[in-house]
Amino acid sequence: MEFKSELKKKAVYAEEILKKYMPKEEGYQKTIMEAMNYSLNSGGKRLRPILTLEACAIAGGNVKDAEPFAAAIEMIHTYSLIHDDLPALDNDDLRRGRATNHKVFGEAMAILAGDALLNYAFETMLKTSIGKENPERYLKAINEIAEGAGIYGMIGGQVVDVQSENISIPMEKLEYIHRNKTAAMMVGCMRAGAQIAGADERKIECITEYAENIGLAFQIVDDILDIVGDESVIGKPVGSDIENHKSTYPSLIGLEESRKKAEELIEKAKSSIAEITDETEFLFGLADYIISRDH
Amino acid sequence: MEFKSELKKKAVYAEEILKKYMPKEEGYQKTIMEAMNYSLNSGGKRLRPILTLEACAIAGGNVKDAEPFAAAIEMIHTYSLIHDDLPALDNDDLRRGRATNHKVFGEAMAILAGDALLNYAFETMLKTSIGKENPERYLKAINEIAEGAGIYGMIGGQVVDVQSENISIPMEKLEYIHRNKTAAMMVGCMRAGAQIAGADERKIECITEYAENIGLAFQIVDDILDIVGDESVIGKPVGSDIENHKSTYPSLIGLEESRKKAEELIEKAKSSIAEITDETEFLFGLADYIISRDH
Repeated sequence: MEFKSELKKKAVYAEEILKKYMPKEEGYQKTIMEAMNYSLNSGGKRLRPILTLEACAIAGGNVKDAEPFAAAIEMIHTYSLIHDDLPALDNDDLRRGRATNHKVFGEAMAILAGDALLNYAFETMLKTSIGKENPERYLKAINEIAEGAGIYGMIGGQVVDVQSENISIPMEKLEYIHRNKTAAMMVGCMRAGAQIAGADERKIECITEYAENIGLAFQIVDDILDIVGDESVIGKPVGSDIENHKSTYPSLIGLEESRKKAEELIEKAKSSIAEITDETEFLFGLADYIISRDH
Repeated sequence: MEFKSELKKKAVYAEEILKKYMPKEEGYQKTIMEAMNYSLNSGGKRLRPILTLEACAIAGGNVKDAEPFAAAIEMIHTYSLIHDDLPALDNDDLRRGRATNHKVFGEAMAILAGDALLNYAFETMLKTSIGKENPERYLKAINEIAEGAGIYGMIGGQVVDVQSENISIPMEKLEYIHRNKTAAMMVGCMRAGAQIAGADERKIECITEYAENIGLAFQIVDDILDIVGDESVIGKPVGSDIENHKSTYPSLIGLEESRKKAEELIEKAKSSIAEITDETEFLFGLADYIISRDH
């Protein structure tokens, strides 16, 4: 219970930061800002920005320096959801209980709003990094985000995911999808925070292991929730994986084994983080939350 | 004639650079690399990377340092074309005489390939900037590109352009579209090259004026070519502006006035660049080429 209120507090802080960096809705091109902000404002757990801020903190950095990155990361996450929901991709009408971007603004604007959010994320990180001490750290941090979001990260996983509908795939390929579609971005978020703090190699290594393991666990739990979850709690229809004949952890190794796998990953994540800090309370709580969450 | 062979030589150089930075087509996510490279390989004038390299050179920089930026800029230009061509936007089947990306790879992959190119452009600039002297210059240079490509640049112009089909718009709004849809990115390209060279404010100012004026002239000529151009030379159908009832320079002020306006902009561009360098031959030639081109 205490952890959940701490998480909520951090999510509120992440949203305050986000609001500060969201584009103003003005000018001839006002509609695109409205479309961007519509999706940025649609809630969510704000996990990724929280991870960035937390990584910066445990690596001994000044969390203020990571704030624009937290906002940017949520912009990138949001762009990926807008494009995922498009008719040519998942064709979803609802996201977190609200109409998806293209349902409100039309397909053309949703495509451009996604593009705009990705670009504006980089603009936000770059603009705020100019003039700071240690510019090299910021170059590295922005690069971590770009890697996590790109073809060797999130987009790579997304592509293979799209190509794996209606076919059965082996575990190795499913793990590739999970590792890249979800975990890579979490890794990027945390490594960015650590880079801003100027963390050494060993710290970055342990933070990476934590992020990768909770990221994989997160995705396994997503697979599980698509079977056992409550539609009204999740805010979108369940059962879509089965409907799309998608290979998932439960479909390949069963529900029980999937739960066990997720738990193992969570334990690994915890031991990695315990190696570099005594301030483990929040990140341990987050790891536990990831397997116990219901949405 | 001599200028054209010089331009051709520089385009070949830009393509060699591009090839060096294009993603390898391998791994589970191979298809996305194929889709990215399909459009990167589809020719074009390679004007934007040439502008970056040229700006770096006249500002006294080492052109080698700007090479990854040249490649990245062509990736951004290419992503914008892929998304522009999508059914929800311009719905074009042909681009430079070849099938558009979504016609070959399908809509889902074309959306993702565009996203991937935008992200990979930043990845390319960031990765190659880490470890160099003067990291601050590179942060500034990447930021110039992000600004030129974003909601206060290319995407902004694109949005207003999409919203201005089938309606008549005033000259002020048309100029906003041209300035942002086309000129902003050219400005970003040249400013990035100048930043890498560590140019002072005055040089950057003059380079900006040159880029902005040739960018505006370029777009006016595009409007003109859509009326008087030869389809087989341009590689796409002409007359689409009239068909879509789009306001253009010729539709608002007539062909003759449009030509005059373009010529004025070209003269302004030349005088800006002459203020900061004696090495004006290529950039003068380029300015002249822009109003005399037939595709």
